[in-house]
Amino acid sequence: MLDRLFDLDPWALRHRGLSTEHTGVLESLLALGNGALGIRGSLDEGDPGHARGTFIAGVHEEHPLSYPEDGYGNPDTGQAIIPVADGSLIRALVDGSPLRLGRGCLDHSRTLDLRAGTLQRETKWRTRSGGTVSLTSTRLVALDRPGVAAIRYRLAAGDKPARVVLRSELVVNGTDSEVDNDDPRVGDRLGKPFEAHIDRVTDCGGLLVHRTRNSAITVAASVHHEVSDNATCLVEHSDDLVAVDIVADLEPGESVEVIKFLGYAWLACAPGEQMAAVSAATLADARERGWDGLVADQRAALDGFWEHALVEIEGDPELEQALRFDLFQLLQASAMIDDAPMGAKGLTGSGYAGHTFWDIEGFVLPALSCLRPDAADRLLAWRAGTLPQARGRAEILGLDGAAFAWRTINGHEASGYWPASSAAQHLNAAIARAIVLHAHITGRDLHGAGLTVLFETARAWAGMGHYDHQGRWHLFGMTGPDEYTGVVDDNTFTNLMAAQHLRWAVTAATTVPEAAEASAVTEDETAAWAQAARSVYVPWDEVRRVHPACENFTTFGEWDFENGPHVNVQGQAHYAKIYRRQVVKQADLVQALWWCEDAFTDEEIARDFDYYERRTVRDSSLSAGVQGVVAARTGHLDLAYSYLRTAALVDLRDIQGDTDQGLHLASLAGAWHTLVAGLGGMREGAEVLTIAPRLPERLSRIMFRLCWQGRVISIDIGRAATTVTLMDGRPVEIVIDGESCTLGDKGLVRPLRQPEPLLDPPVQPPGRSPSI
Amino acid sequence: MLDRLFDLDPWALRHRGLSTEHTGVLESLLALGNGALGIRGSLDEGDPGHARGTFIAGVHEEHPLSYPEDGYGNPDTGQAIIPVADGSLIRALVDGSPLRLGRGCLDHSRTLDLRAGTLQRETKWRTRSGGTVSLTSTRLVALDRPGVAAIRYRLAAGDKPARVVLRSELVVNGTDSEVDNDDPRVGDRLGKPFEAHIDRVTDCGGLLVHRTRNSAITVAASVHHEVSDNATCLVEHSDDLVAVDIVADLEPGESVEVIKFLGYAWLACAPGEQMAAVSAATLADARERGWDGLVADQRAALDGFWEHALVEIEGDPELEQALRFDLFQLLQASAMIDDAPMGAKGLTGSGYAGHTFWDIEGFVLPALSCLRPDAADRLLAWRAGTLPQARGRAEILGLDGAAFAWRTINGHEASGYWPASSAAQHLNAAIARAIVLHAHITGRDLHGAGLTVLFETARAWAGMGHYDHQGRWHLFGMTGPDEYTGVVDDNTFTNLMAAQHLRWAVTAATTVPEAAEASAVTEDETAAWAQAARSVYVPWDEVRRVHPACENFTTFGEWDFENGPHVNVQGQAHYAKIYRRQVVKQADLVQALWWCEDAFTDEEIARDFDYYERRTVRDSSLSAGVQGVVAARTGHLDLAYSYLRTAALVDLRDIQGDTDQGLHLASLAGAWHTLVAGLGGMREGAEVLTIAPRLPERLSRIMFRLCWQGRVISIDIGRAATTVTLMDGRPVEIVIDGESCTLGDKGLVRPLRQPEPLLDPPVQPPGRSPSI
Repeated sequence: MLDRLFDLDPWALRHRGLSTEHTGVLESLLALGNGALGIRGSLDEGDPGHARGTFIAGVHEEHPLSYPEDGYGNPDTGQAIIPVADGSLIRALVDGSPLRLGRGCLDHSRTLDLRAGTLQRETKWRTRSGGTVSLTSTRLVALDRPGVAAIRYRLAAGDKPARVVLRSELVVNGTDSEVDNDDPRVGDRLGKPFEAHIDRVTDCGGLLVHRTRNSAITVAASVHHEVSDNATCLVEHSDDLVAVDIVADLEPGESVEVIKFLGYAWLACAPGEQMAAVSAATLADARERGWDGLVADQRAALDGFWEHALVEIEGDPELEQALRFDLFQLLQASAMIDDAPMGAKGLTGSGYAGHTFWDIEGFVLPALSCLRPDAADRLLAWRAGTLPQARGRAEILGLDGAAFAWRTINGHEASGYWPASSAAQHLNAAIARAIVLHAHITGRDLHGAGLTVLFETARAWAGMGHYDHQGRWHLFGMTGPDEYTGVVDDNTFTNLMAAQHLRWAVTAATTVPEAAEASAVTEDETAAWAQAARSVYVPWDEVRRVHPACENFTTFGEWDFENGPHVNVQGQAHYAKIYRRQVVKQADLVQALWWCEDAFTDEEIARDFDYYERRTVRDSSLSAGVQGVVAARTGHLDLAYSYLRTAALVDLRDIQGDTDQGLHLASLAGAWHTLVAGLGGMREGAEVLTIAPRLPERLSRIMFRLCWQGRVISIDIGRAATTVTLMDGRPVEIVIDGESCTLGDKGLVRPLRQPEPLLDPPVQPPGRSPSI
Repeated sequence: MLDRLFDLDPWALRHRGLSTEHTGVLESLLALGNGALGIRGSLDEGDPGHARGTFIAGVHEEHPLSYPEDGYGNPDTGQAIIPVADGSLIRALVDGSPLRLGRGCLDHSRTLDLRAGTLQRETKWRTRSGGTVSLTSTRLVALDRPGVAAIRYRLAAGDKPARVVLRSELVVNGTDSEVDNDDPRVGDRLGKPFEAHIDRVTDCGGLLVHRTRNSAITVAASVHHEVSDNATCLVEHSDDLVAVDIVADLEPGESVEVIKFLGYAWLACAPGEQMAAVSAATLADARERGWDGLVADQRAALDGFWEHALVEIEGDPELEQALRFDLFQLLQASAMIDDAPMGAKGLTGSGYAGHTFWDIEGFVLPALSCLRPDAADRLLAWRAGTLPQARGRAEILGLDGAAFAWRTINGHEASGYWPASSAAQHLNAAIARAIVLHAHITGRDLHGAGLTVLFETARAWAGMGHYDHQGRWHLFGMTGPDEYTGVVDDNTFTNLMAAQHLRWAVTAATTVPEAAEASAVTEDETAAWAQAARSVYVPWDEVRRVHPACENFTTFGEWDFENGPHVNVQGQAHYAKIYRRQVVKQADLVQALWWCEDAFTDEEIARDFDYYERRTVRDSSLSAGVQGVVAARTGHLDLAYSYLRTAALVDLRDIQGDTDQGLHLASLAGAWHTLVAGLGGMREGAEVLTIAPRLPERLSRIMFRLCWQGRVISIDIGRAATTVTLMDGRPVEIVIDGESCTLGDKGLVRPLRQPEPLLDPPVQPPGRSPSI
């Protein structure tokens, strides 16, 4: 875990200093993006760098997958996100010497501005000739235009003249992919994935059109430079490069300014000329709007976002900054996303090969439904668009209906280890949940593709389950969220979620019969779904009076936390051992206590949480947010607060140690859930918004806003009272602490009722208390 | 399944005809070997061929293993058997044209002689010039000399003169390996695995010494040709080749004869000159003994073998031939083996990359203990010699003691799919069983490395198991023999075998305290082993009144045998589905009914067998032999007979469809078990030999011999009576049909008591009745 890298500032992350120690982490933290286009926070000059890269959602390459021992249905093709044409590079030569961080550098800071939506850099160098130069560069990826990025680069001479050459590049195939696969064919495919189709130059820029060799995705990138009058431009180009050299002789105090506009366009199987035209038009839009216009639009987009997404925390400025950073990154991961999945790391890095996982539907989507419902719409539409692939996968698994890919970019399953993917069918229930919650949160009825997904995945559950002679419905051979307990019978979370899913499908089939008919859902089928949901088997340990995470779980051997590994367990112990030990990677039964809380009594929730806390090592970044919600639910507010900090700071403090590969979006969303569902007690599982405010000792006030069925609501929890304000929209029913009220223009004020925990605060395994 | 390929002959397999349809199968069936050295039954001229190859036990190359998603403890290095210098090639040019099967061929037969131990070939060609030539070639791999093979090649002119050139080769790196791994590095490593170190020629032969690039095994091969006086020799050589061209002008009726002697030597990390010397001396031994001497020695070796291994079957000549072939192949796989594992396919092909599996200890070794106890000794010593690797593997799995490799050549685990390897720890119990049975069968006390193995693997069981609150001892997350049911809790077979294993270890620690002390076995440890064995949990389904193969098995969803695949299920359905369906690849619970029969009542055995027969698709060649034994045990003698045929003919009829990759040694041994343990009712689980003779309707008499505690015993089961004869050795106690008797020089005669089955004959899944 790192020390704090940034100044404390409620609206900005400013990192100062010349150290290159945390280059990779900073590239992820300072990444800019809009959901469609993302640029890692590398230095203008690219070097020193960890993994420079510009990414576009959905732009990936395929590669072969090999298995030491193959099995039926193992995917033979993998997918990986690949960096596209990178336009972030502007290198400077002053008096013939390159400017480089740490060589003659007097001062350096970078600032991610959460309201401006820009990354600004201020650097001062002593030049070899004894003078100084000052650089101010400002970078943005437009939050309102999918393919636009821009950089304003300004270099000023100090008290001596300076001859400056700025070399600005747009370059393809220029970065090595980090390949997490030893098969040399994978590196071959991902090393230089693009084939050049078109390259052109203009007077101060140019255009590159490339296509991936196997996935056949066409990507066009246009660049233009607006250069101050005191400079001249030279342009060169090749298949993979457009480079513009900008030369200026600066008098003392004089500066040269370059505004670099970038316009991207991309589409699978599209002709190169078509994409060239779209990218040129995208660039023209940006040029016409101009730098100041783009900056103004960027601020307007963020003002609009914060208006309904603002959080305020009194008593912990680092947490407030972190939560705002988290929300900013969720916006950056989603604003313009369309017809593409959101990777587990958004566009901030190539970790997990850019694949999307249940992280998104499970954690990010329900937050976006409250924060950016339009983005949630488009993400759900993307998943529904992969129904053909999901039907194909179901067929391979011997199931009717659809089974979505555990990890994918193009909708096809890309996991090579089925016990942690094809066995983890709970993914489909998380998708169904995201669909249903989205309907509740937006107030729109279920419709269209969402319903088809609900029905088709319900069908798959029906094929997976079966009855014992006592008429109990079982799901055997499954893996729940906890990846340290695999291929088990009756994973409680999965059983409860499947039953929930089937009930949703039954309700939907009754409510929207024409949709059911369109999916050929018969009455026999809904009757079978209803019966399975009614008959679902829920393991129970009568001796310990807790719910086993799966059949027998509580009789598994205990993990030796004192002597065995208690962090990164999977890196130090074999699955053959950990799959049947009471060591939990991430909330699993505990996640059921939140997502399926109606299935448990208060006492059960308290006892179960206590039991699993002792055994959860939190090796997954998905876990802390869930534990935080349930800690708040059970009245352990200090613990909830600790988990809130752990989830919120996951990347700012590099808690998992791999932030250099990209941000942990599900944890960032998980922090918001801990705030809103945990401390706010918000539940969106019914059509009426429910809250139950709580406040941990360490905080004096929390405030959050969210969109609910077309309104904007602010919930402000103070030590004495909670104030709920309707900021926008018509009056709406709301339940506070179990009391139903109507929220109108006058708002509501209710005294804070802190919960009484039934048990003492739970303990965690040695060294695994959330202590940040 | 193929039609019969060979003439019916009690002592020979003669294949006639010019077809090249079954080339690969015939190469495996007509392979010669002695356990150390093996040569596939390819044609002298090599072509048409399927996969020519000369193999040496233990000679392998290593290659990288890559995983789409890696996990802790996955082996990163694979192993594969590789063909060594091949000396089987003798190509003939007659009047300038090569002799080739099917081109001008008038007649062709090959005969594997089960008493001579030779492969003889008779071929007649019409030459291009209108004459005829006749070829008689005879090949042998010495059953009494590890590194010796020889070929007598005789070509005779018919009624016209013929100019003959015979090109005889010894060639390395000349065959492509069949690589079952897409990672191109694997093919690179295995394509030309040998580096040349020495090549030399003599006047009519030469020497090649090579070393594998990564595993560093030195292999030397020497060749010499004795040529009839009417021919001249020309020798050429290169790094990878010694070629001798033998030229003769034959008058009508005249023949040219070549005797090709081959001498091999090999050792890991040995200097080239050392191996060159050993191989030259091996060759000298063979040359000195001469062709006739080698042929005489070969017959003597086989006479000795058949004296104590003979089987006779009256009523089914094909079965008699098959059983003798099976025993012959078991001899060929074992006679000279030393300091090397026996691959699942012996040296008859490169299937399963030449790896050894529990097939050997589970099925082949207990048969060899009765048939070739010296070979069984050496195989047990090889396994014990891999204790350091097994200790290392146990450490990776988080266990004390030792856990042997599931598939290996050099002792290191080479499996890349842990649910079917590291989860299948029953392998260790099969090794323990082989050790204990070997002691019973040979009458020698347990000692030395065998005891260390017993203790060290008992330790691993203790680490795997744990108690529930009722004090029952469980093994969770295991895979039993049935590879269609993986990662389950309390696999009944595994639990019973582990308990058995622990009891053996406790007894051994008490009987040989000094060995226990040497392995640091404490009294606490043996007490813990004894308690675990006493407390072992055995699943029981009270509703169906059968033993589930594992916890919950009988409540798994039933397999749709009518509509789903019912053969090669794993090739058509995903593990995620089949792991929790009632579809059984191979005997599992049924194997417990044999290996652990004391744990079951007669009624349970009958009911359990009936239950699992309906659900077993027999996709593994290991299964039929076990089902045959239990069919006989339950009195279903016709079914036992069918399984006996199925196991015995597995390769002769290519029942599995992959005999071209090598023979199924475990099935060949399984046939013998069905005969001896099934129809003979023989049990070797105690120190006194027990038999219970039975005779199926279709046979009028069966006879088999075996070694027992230094004696040779013949058991001759006729319709009226069983005659037991002590052919060699001192009188010995024996139990026949539960009656204890002393077998002395006069032998014993007992009336045949056919068992009464408790249930009707069981049925198998559609299309899966053994019907050959």
